[in-house]
Amino acid sequence: MVRSVNPVDGSPFGPEIPDTDPAAFDAALDAAVAVARSWGEASPGARAVVLRAMADALDGHADELAVLADQETGLGADRLRGEVGRASFQLRLLADLAADGAYRTTDVQGLDERPLPAGHPPLRRTLVPLGPVAVYGASNFPFAFSVPGGDTASALAAGCPVVVKAHPAHPQTSQAVADLLVGAAAAHGWPGGVVALVHGFEAGRRLVTDPRVRAAAFTGSGPGGRALFDLAVARVDPIPFYGELGSVNPVVALASALGDPDRFAADYLASLTLGSGQFCTNPGVLVVPAASGLPEAIAARVVGLAPGRLLSAGVADLLNRSTGQLLATPGVTALAQGPAGDGGFTHPVAVAATDVATVLGAPQLLHLECFGPVGLVVTYDTDAQLAALLDALPGCLVGAVFATQDDPGAAAVVAALARVAGRVVWNGWPTGVAVAVAQHHGGPWPATTNPLHTSVGASAVHRFLRPVTFQSLPDALLPPVVGS
Amino acid sequence: MVRSVNPVDGSPFGPEIPDTDPAAFDAALDAAVAVARSWGEASPGARAVVLRAMADALDGHADELAVLADQETGLGADRLRGEVGRASFQLRLLADLAADGAYRTTDVQGLDERPLPAGHPPLRRTLVPLGPVAVYGASNFPFAFSVPGGDTASALAAGCPVVVKAHPAHPQTSQAVADLLVGAAAAHGWPGGVVALVHGFEAGRRLVTDPRVRAAAFTGSGPGGRALFDLAVARVDPIPFYGELGSVNPVVALASALGDPDRFAADYLASLTLGSGQFCTNPGVLVVPAASGLPEAIAARVVGLAPGRLLSAGVADLLNRSTGQLLATPGVTALAQGPAGDGGFTHPVAVAATDVATVLGAPQLLHLECFGPVGLVVTYDTDAQLAALLDALPGCLVGAVFATQDDPGAAAVVAALARVAGRVVWNGWPTGVAVAVAQHHGGPWPATTNPLHTSVGASAVHRFLRPVTFQSLPDALLPPVVGS
Repeated sequence: MVRSVNPVDGSPFGPEIPDTDPAAFDAALDAAVAVARSWGEASPGARAVVLRAMADALDGHADELAVLADQETGLGADRLRGEVGRASFQLRLLADLAADGAYRTTDVQGLDERPLPAGHPPLRRTLVPLGPVAVYGASNFPFAFSVPGGDTASALAAGCPVVVKAHPAHPQTSQAVADLLVGAAAAHGWPGGVVALVHGFEAGRRLVTDPRVRAAAFTGSGPGGRALFDLAVARVDPIPFYGELGSVNPVVALASALGDPDRFAADYLASLTLGSGQFCTNPGVLVVPAASGLPEAIAARVVGLAPGRLLSAGVADLLNRSTGQLLATPGVTALAQGPAGDGGFTHPVAVAATDVATVLGAPQLLHLECFGPVGLVVTYDTDAQLAALLDALPGCLVGAVFATQDDPGAAAVVAALARVAGRVVWNGWPTGVAVAVAQHHGGPWPATTNPLHTSVGASAVHRFLRPVTFQSLPDALLPPVVGS
Repeated sequence: MVRSVNPVDGSPFGPEIPDTDPAAFDAALDAAVAVARSWGEASPGARAVVLRAMADALDGHADELAVLADQETGLGADRLRGEVGRASFQLRLLADLAADGAYRTTDVQGLDERPLPAGHPPLRRTLVPLGPVAVYGASNFPFAFSVPGGDTASALAAGCPVVVKAHPAHPQTSQAVADLLVGAAAAHGWPGGVVALVHGFEAGRRLVTDPRVRAAAFTGSGPGGRALFDLAVARVDPIPFYGELGSVNPVVALASALGDPDRFAADYLASLTLGSGQFCTNPGVLVVPAASGLPEAIAARVVGLAPGRLLSAGVADLLNRSTGQLLATPGVTALAQGPAGDGGFTHPVAVAATDVATVLGAPQLLHLECFGPVGLVVTYDTDAQLAALLDALPGCLVGAVFATQDDPGAAAVVAALARVAGRVVWNGWPTGVAVAVAQHHGGPWPATTNPLHTSVGASAVHRFLRPVTFQSLPDALLPPVVGS
């Protein structure tokens, strides 16, 4: 059982939403299996129509969805209305991809009559859907990384039915959105199995171990994602598990970019506190020259910043623990802290400071994600110190570098970030992930459980497709899914 | 310690090859790490030169390599000379891909100034190498799936150094080939870390758990692959593990294709006994109409076939066990068996028979790979029985269907095979995997540990590359690996 909690005052509200019981769980999975073949073998255009109808349904209810989600998350109705638009835009982007269908056939080679090993029969390499997919909604994006988010949109576009595990921090929003998606599919003649929603911790655990589920996608905490990953790969029949677990997202500022420390400090804090810092792309570690005046400029601004509103008691507890760990590390000092909030779930804006030597002696600092408006500034004195720090960076979703283009040190920072990050930003902040064909939102462990894949953008669809090569098959016999 | 054994008479020969000791193991891994950056960031053309030199070195020593490998495997010098050519062809195919380099940039999008969510900064999505890769050689292909095989070729082409674990059934061949590859790299100025070889069970276990190894590829038995997969995913930092574990590879013959049962039986047995049946694409299960006369035609031919020469005592033991399991299953009968061999490691050609009802009641029969010249014929009486059997098929590398193009039942068989197999062959046998751009050699579990990837053909390179999106980066600052 779960009940919504308003993070503004910590009060529960709305109905008690029961955990999905085993019978309902089985019915949802059976329905997904029952529809998997027809959904998977439907023409690309037929699936696109449904995805666009889902996008329309979201847009048509954006205002009330934003109000409801704001009550459950405290993220603000304006931001949430924008997020509904982001989710519907993503559904349409993937609908366009699905409608094209060209991506499904990757290579066609005719008969090559040369002797072996060069010769070969006619070969046609195509992509087919994996089957029912489990999606785990995230707390910090009740739309764009939850029920109607990129995981759901890309799995549906690929031809896979989806069973979403609702995040307990926004169960009513999850249910309202699921009802809209189910309704949109039904309006085009598709039964409920195309999308379904389950609630409860146990349902989430069962989902990733159920033999009817053929892949899973997750956005959330490192420990939660690891636990589900471990279940997925320990199955008698292991399944692909795509977990996006967050990271510290290093931002490296070279001296050439720091002509105006106060302006830079303001921009940094805007990124650090966006959404109260509750983004997996939050700039957790800022690397700056010790003599830049930047730590001082940051400190001067932090004290005047309002506290961050947090999503839930769980997020607040975790942030208090991780911030405590950060500040308890020898060599780390509290640079500045803003005022505390009163009532509900909040945390002061806080920035800690340390130097390269401390980080190299305590590399866990580069793994400590403070999920909220809390950052760490690492100062360096020499190029050698900077190089040593760059070599110590763990896998991350995104890294950024600020420098002038003619700075001779810039290329080395770009190369170092490319070795560990899924996205490298030039003179920009890591927050804000555009939904686009050329986007990559992923990265090496511990940022994700699989460095080859993205959860944002058109390429996300490839997580749920596997190749099949047809050898010597007459075109007339190609299955509908690849023949169209 | 391992010593070569001649499978013709079971006699050991040649030097005692010690297991790689911890110091030598560490040196190999350190060398791989040391060269990973320069190999990974070398221009695509520079890597292609080395791959082609490796191919030339193999071709230049094909005769003596084939003689040596024949002594260790009994596969025959002619077949083995051809396999050297297959391995060198594959190295050149991947060299061509690497030299092109175009595959490294998947999408480029300029600035889109529309408001969010449609607008986005300039984005360039590229592929970068994962780092050092562990490759586990297979017993049945001492060249094409061992030291110089598709896993090695594709990892090197991707920009990843390779450490190969030698298969203990052909340690001298492994060492001779590794020396040639190392020499070819050295001739172009590359240190030993680009390719290295380790020997011994413990070295194999350590390889997949070593933090310096960033991905692993394996071809071999289900239990062996599962054990290594479990180690790879249990790491503190899980790594991609690409295991190709073999399968039963169903071949479905419809009545329309069986005009000449004796000819069909001869073709079936040629595929079943090719390489003494020691192929992961061996047609383990043949599905035929009960009234076709085919079982009788097969039985008539089997009794005259010479026994199969097996690779090793281990393969012989496993085949005796699995064949025993097959024949001990109630409802399965021995259709026919050829004469037994004398001396060395051999097994008679043997075909068992059963019907659909038996298989549906004992589905483990569809998971029982008899690695050798042993097949199972499953007879069906009705279309409904055939459909039920097709629905029960597990994941497999390849499935084949024999039918005339106007047979109304053909499309359903093609679709059913496409749901479970990585490759679907029309009117041909599953043995023989062309090395080609449009090839896919993979499939759903239990055929492989990851259904998205192939170990043969140009797409194999994608197992060892991960995307990075550069946001707003000036072209002049693109890292060399993606800029060329």
